[in-house]
Amino acid sequence: MLDMFFNPKAVAVIGASRDPVKLGYGVLNNILNSGYPGQIYPINPKSAEVLGLQSYKSVLDIPEHVDMAIIVIPNRFVASVLEECGQKGIKGVVIITAGFREAGREGVKMERELLSIAHKHGIRLIGPNCLGTIDTVLPLNGSFAVGMPKKGTIGFMSQSGALCTAILDWAVAEDVGFSYFVSLGNKADVDEVDLLEAWENDENSRVIISYLEGLRDGRRFIDVARRVTRKTPFIVVKSGNTEAGSRAVSSHTGSLAGSEAAYDAAFRQSGVLRALSIQDLFDYSLAFAYQPTLKGNQIAIVTNAGGPGIMATDALERSGLKLAGLQRETIDYLRENLPPAANIYNPIDVIGDARADRYSRAIEAVLKDENVDGLMVILTPQVMTEITETAELIGEISARYGKPVLGCFMGQATIGPGIEILSKYSIPNYLFPERAAAAFKAMQDYHTWLERPPLEITSFDVDKGKVHQLLDDVREDGRLTMGEAEARDVMAAYGIRIPQSKVAKHADEAVRIAEEIGYPVVMKIASPDILHKSDIGGIKVGLNSATDVRDAFDLIVYRATRYMPDATIWGVQVQEMVMGGKEIIIGMNRDPQFGPLLMFGLGGIYVEVLKDVTFRVAPISSLDAKEMIREIRAYHLLQGVRGEQASDQEAIVDVLLRISQLVTDFPEIVELDINPLLVCEVGRGAVAVDARLVLSS
Amino acid sequence: MLDMFFNPKAVAVIGASRDPVKLGYGVLNNILNSGYPGQIYPINPKSAEVLGLQSYKSVLDIPEHVDMAIIVIPNRFVASVLEECGQKGIKGVVIITAGFREAGREGVKMERELLSIAHKHGIRLIGPNCLGTIDTVLPLNGSFAVGMPKKGTIGFMSQSGALCTAILDWAVAEDVGFSYFVSLGNKADVDEVDLLEAWENDENSRVIISYLEGLRDGRRFIDVARRVTRKTPFIVVKSGNTEAGSRAVSSHTGSLAGSEAAYDAAFRQSGVLRALSIQDLFDYSLAFAYQPTLKGNQIAIVTNAGGPGIMATDALERSGLKLAGLQRETIDYLRENLPPAANIYNPIDVIGDARADRYSRAIEAVLKDENVDGLMVILTPQVMTEITETAELIGEISARYGKPVLGCFMGQATIGPGIEILSKYSIPNYLFPERAAAAFKAMQDYHTWLERPPLEITSFDVDKGKVHQLLDDVREDGRLTMGEAEARDVMAAYGIRIPQSKVAKHADEAVRIAEEIGYPVVMKIASPDILHKSDIGGIKVGLNSATDVRDAFDLIVYRATRYMPDATIWGVQVQEMVMGGKEIIIGMNRDPQFGPLLMFGLGGIYVEVLKDVTFRVAPISSLDAKEMIREIRAYHLLQGVRGEQASDQEAIVDVLLRISQLVTDFPEIVELDINPLLVCEVGRGAVAVDARLVLSS
Repeated sequence: MLDMFFNPKAVAVIGASRDPVKLGYGVLNNILNSGYPGQIYPINPKSAEVLGLQSYKSVLDIPEHVDMAIIVIPNRFVASVLEECGQKGIKGVVIITAGFREAGREGVKMERELLSIAHKHGIRLIGPNCLGTIDTVLPLNGSFAVGMPKKGTIGFMSQSGALCTAILDWAVAEDVGFSYFVSLGNKADVDEVDLLEAWENDENSRVIISYLEGLRDGRRFIDVARRVTRKTPFIVVKSGNTEAGSRAVSSHTGSLAGSEAAYDAAFRQSGVLRALSIQDLFDYSLAFAYQPTLKGNQIAIVTNAGGPGIMATDALERSGLKLAGLQRETIDYLRENLPPAANIYNPIDVIGDARADRYSRAIEAVLKDENVDGLMVILTPQVMTEITETAELIGEISARYGKPVLGCFMGQATIGPGIEILSKYSIPNYLFPERAAAAFKAMQDYHTWLERPPLEITSFDVDKGKVHQLLDDVREDGRLTMGEAEARDVMAAYGIRIPQSKVAKHADEAVRIAEEIGYPVVMKIASPDILHKSDIGGIKVGLNSATDVRDAFDLIVYRATRYMPDATIWGVQVQEMVMGGKEIIIGMNRDPQFGPLLMFGLGGIYVEVLKDVTFRVAPISSLDAKEMIREIRAYHLLQGVRGEQASDQEAIVDVLLRISQLVTDFPEIVELDINPLLVCEVGRGAVAVDARLVLSS
Repeated sequence: MLDMFFNPKAVAVIGASRDPVKLGYGVLNNILNSGYPGQIYPINPKSAEVLGLQSYKSVLDIPEHVDMAIIVIPNRFVASVLEECGQKGIKGVVIITAGFREAGREGVKMERELLSIAHKHGIRLIGPNCLGTIDTVLPLNGSFAVGMPKKGTIGFMSQSGALCTAILDWAVAEDVGFSYFVSLGNKADVDEVDLLEAWENDENSRVIISYLEGLRDGRRFIDVARRVTRKTPFIVVKSGNTEAGSRAVSSHTGSLAGSEAAYDAAFRQSGVLRALSIQDLFDYSLAFAYQPTLKGNQIAIVTNAGGPGIMATDALERSGLKLAGLQRETIDYLRENLPPAANIYNPIDVIGDARADRYSRAIEAVLKDENVDGLMVILTPQVMTEITETAELIGEISARYGKPVLGCFMGQATIGPGIEILSKYSIPNYLFPERAAAAFKAMQDYHTWLERPPLEITSFDVDKGKVHQLLDDVREDGRLTMGEAEARDVMAAYGIRIPQSKVAKHADEAVRIAEEIGYPVVMKIASPDILHKSDIGGIKVGLNSATDVRDAFDLIVYRATRYMPDATIWGVQVQEMVMGGKEIIIGMNRDPQFGPLLMFGLGGIYVEVLKDVTFRVAPISSLDAKEMIREIRAYHLLQGVRGEQASDQEAIVDVLLRISQLVTDFPEIVELDINPLLVCEVGRGAVAVDARLVLSS
């Protein structure tokens, strides 16, 4: 896929220029210098030859087939040239030219026109307003960037062109290699998801990294990323905490679910590693690009300095990794082969006067140890330290064991040559132990993702037709919200247990229903117009006798009519009073990027004050549901504390999955809250006591 | 103070050597090369001359007075040489030699001997097991470090010598200057607090930074740091999460208060800025060393790239800083002087084709704006970017406005010369916007500290003698714990409200007491041997009548004797039942480093499951107490949610301050819990319903 960009046999540069100040010169010059093996056709209406190549007035004049064009001409001419590309049968066009959507209303119109021309001719577009693309594999540097990075195994894409230039500048200086380097610009057509899909089976990238501000199709992003990350780690820096849009939200879930929560959930569900800064992005990508996979969380540290060893230990443990417990034979070997003052337990301190040979004995012993999954080698430049020799030995030894080794040579002036040697052996170096620890953490997160079973969506046997009917009824009624009396039927249709309940039209009927259900009962006003029933005194609980029920009926109806004389009143709902149990909230809010965002938390204060909730994009698996439950801070309350029984977590999982299915089946449900879901002791299930739905208009 | 180290007129190097492989050569050579203006006396029993200087067999042979000696001879000879230093009247000795406390039991003994020699002669010691000291002010490089940093305004001290070497290596390469650079080694005598105190009125350091693993005297650290940080920012990296020691803790406070909580509290109370990594330590220190003070939290961003501008915005807002809202005239000026596509609101995007002149217009306008407290200038190397010219203009303009300006020139290869120019103008550059944002945050934290009123400890009129008596009674009784029946008298003596209560010896007396107090009452077993009364069914609540009280008396006594037949039983406590109110826990645990560590949190689940608590080292001010209350996640619950009245926070402050005074007055109280303190509505106070104390043995 997108082969027109990554394997073109012939490329046209529209706007190729002989003037070194122009971008059209830069692009053509880069293509030539990059050693592109295909045909190159400069397009320039004013010259017959550019940079020694025959030039054409239009792509239509080129006698041969062309796969890809790069456009670097003023914005007002781009559309007509793109039309010509279409007529010529060119299928890939990179538009470097700026002045489109980013430049205001007129630009938006022009960009829309480009897209419609592209659609008409089946052209895929990169840009406009981008730096171009660099492909070190083919090779083809179709950008106007000043330097070209060396060939490597990092696939990079970025929405921000300026960030591309900064990163190139850094990469050239640090000698970091890339496989592909794509500036996406305005993403009129090709976006991150297209590239991710195109690179899915590509062997040239060991890691894909991206700077991202927003997505067009969150659902597709999840689906593609979830697949690709099974093969290749994908690290994203996401910036721009744009809020979920302007639609007013009335539910708890809606008010807590922001765009950031949705992105975090989506990344987590699709195995995307999120870096919180560009520095983290690089730090992680180097580890993935250069080192073998981390296969566990047991890390060893070899250091010639106590302080940095402690800092590395702190950082590893803070991030949830473990200091490997060494095998007895390793410890024995270290005791015999290190000086008495050395620390032979992890972190292994070979102490300040260690030369290369002592380092090498420790490193080899540790890598051999089956309890060790990865190794961090810390070196501080001391009087006896053999910096380059130590680096050579680290490189040679680590190549034999297939375990990730990260360097932490600390300092700058004197350690430089050592870092270069590490780099020769594909060992990334981190100036500070915290950064090496963070890279290990990213590797461990990826390992955890790979170990995760593939997504399995449970499909329950539900009464979908009934819900269709219920939603239609509400709409026919001219409403978009469903209060409890109606929402309970939706719940029931999807197999969620609800309290026994019937609407009574008069007090006698209420008593009859209460006696069927059994005392105590709850009674609530049943009216499509009154959503916040408790506010008007429309709920009475703990009614224990026929007298209580009669009194409550009259009181509730009186209050409802007094407060809202025009309200339609269906009667009073008489409901089983569920005893005991913990209040849970399960909700859904539709995110503009990712769709149905499920929320889980404990009800009441936990959701309202502590905001102790967690999110996933539906549909979710039962593993996702279990993780949601375990993620909240108050999780221990569900396990039973202070002498209480543990809550029925299986029942919560069941409700989460059924709601996941419901909101996937019915995209017109835009908000949903079950609040509370009362969860009983283990084995005794959960009951949706109250629920609300909002439909899309 | 410590002038013998920072202003010696004459220095002896004991172990000075002609052999370039020896540390004794390195030290002497460094002193000579550093341009030390005083007298230098090499001590070497075998040579009459070392590096061109007359050498002596012993310090006792030197005809003149000597202020400071540096010892670099094998560990077994150090003690006798130190004794000679004492006889010579040398008052400052740096012991570089290793092989003391860090090397095991024998070394500990030897180090103790050094200290006793030093005490006898009034010598101050730095080390042993250190790199030595570097003073760029005098100047005097009395270390064996390979490079010498340039003169600067950062005072540095580190427990880890290896870290010193790594940092020197970095500083030399990055051209970062230091005023003092002290390797503290084993800290047998001089430690961080001594240096901090010595540098208190020193004008040569604009910022003091330290790598710290542990402290000897936490109380003194707080007192000195609190004073010094009023004049000079002090940044610490603390590593080594050692736990609070081995004494078994029985209280809630004890189990939640770890060493880390104590350090965090101590740092916060003394204005110490905590960096979480060495990288942060440098990033922050450069901002303080080079730039003027930040006087508010309104930051402006000028950038030539949208993406990094968003990332900077995210990072600033995440850390609690604000994007400055520009004045109308600034916006008007920018609108007129920047191209139409530019963003004239903060973050100000001068867009990709900005040359130096456009940058300078934006920067000047923004710095002029009174709404702006600090400025971050982001530059990505694009085709038109004038890197060095822009850097020059940033330097020139920012020098005129006295506001902190931090650079974020992104990349490496081509931006290097720009960074050098920024550095010439004392503008630190950060490779990524997140790091510049973090530096601003540190500056803002320091500004907040400076704005804080000086510590004021309220002193309440309390009955100290009564508490003395009560504690003595318990000890005479052969006990170390006080349960509620006794602890309540301690509370009362310190003016903390307790429920009315009396101990009844028989049922009739219980009824009489209950009728005095008024129903309902609570009854509890009163026994010094039974601490966890509810576990044995020894508490009954809500007793409403004489019959209830009689029944409860018999039941409680029966249960207590059944469960603990040997328990001493004083009777049954009859107590006023405090109605309503929120459960609070206030506690104290004595930290081995910092002493009395106060804890505050909501009781019950909030402390037990959510561990939502906060700490301060006593004594605290009422401002500290108010901050403690506001810091917990569940703070909103005290403000009144879900229709409840707000709680009486003033009353909580009052109890916190009284407890602070109590535990400061009585160091023998090692643990204390008030659990619960019931806090009523605003204006209605708080009642210590239950309390426990543990005394030191």
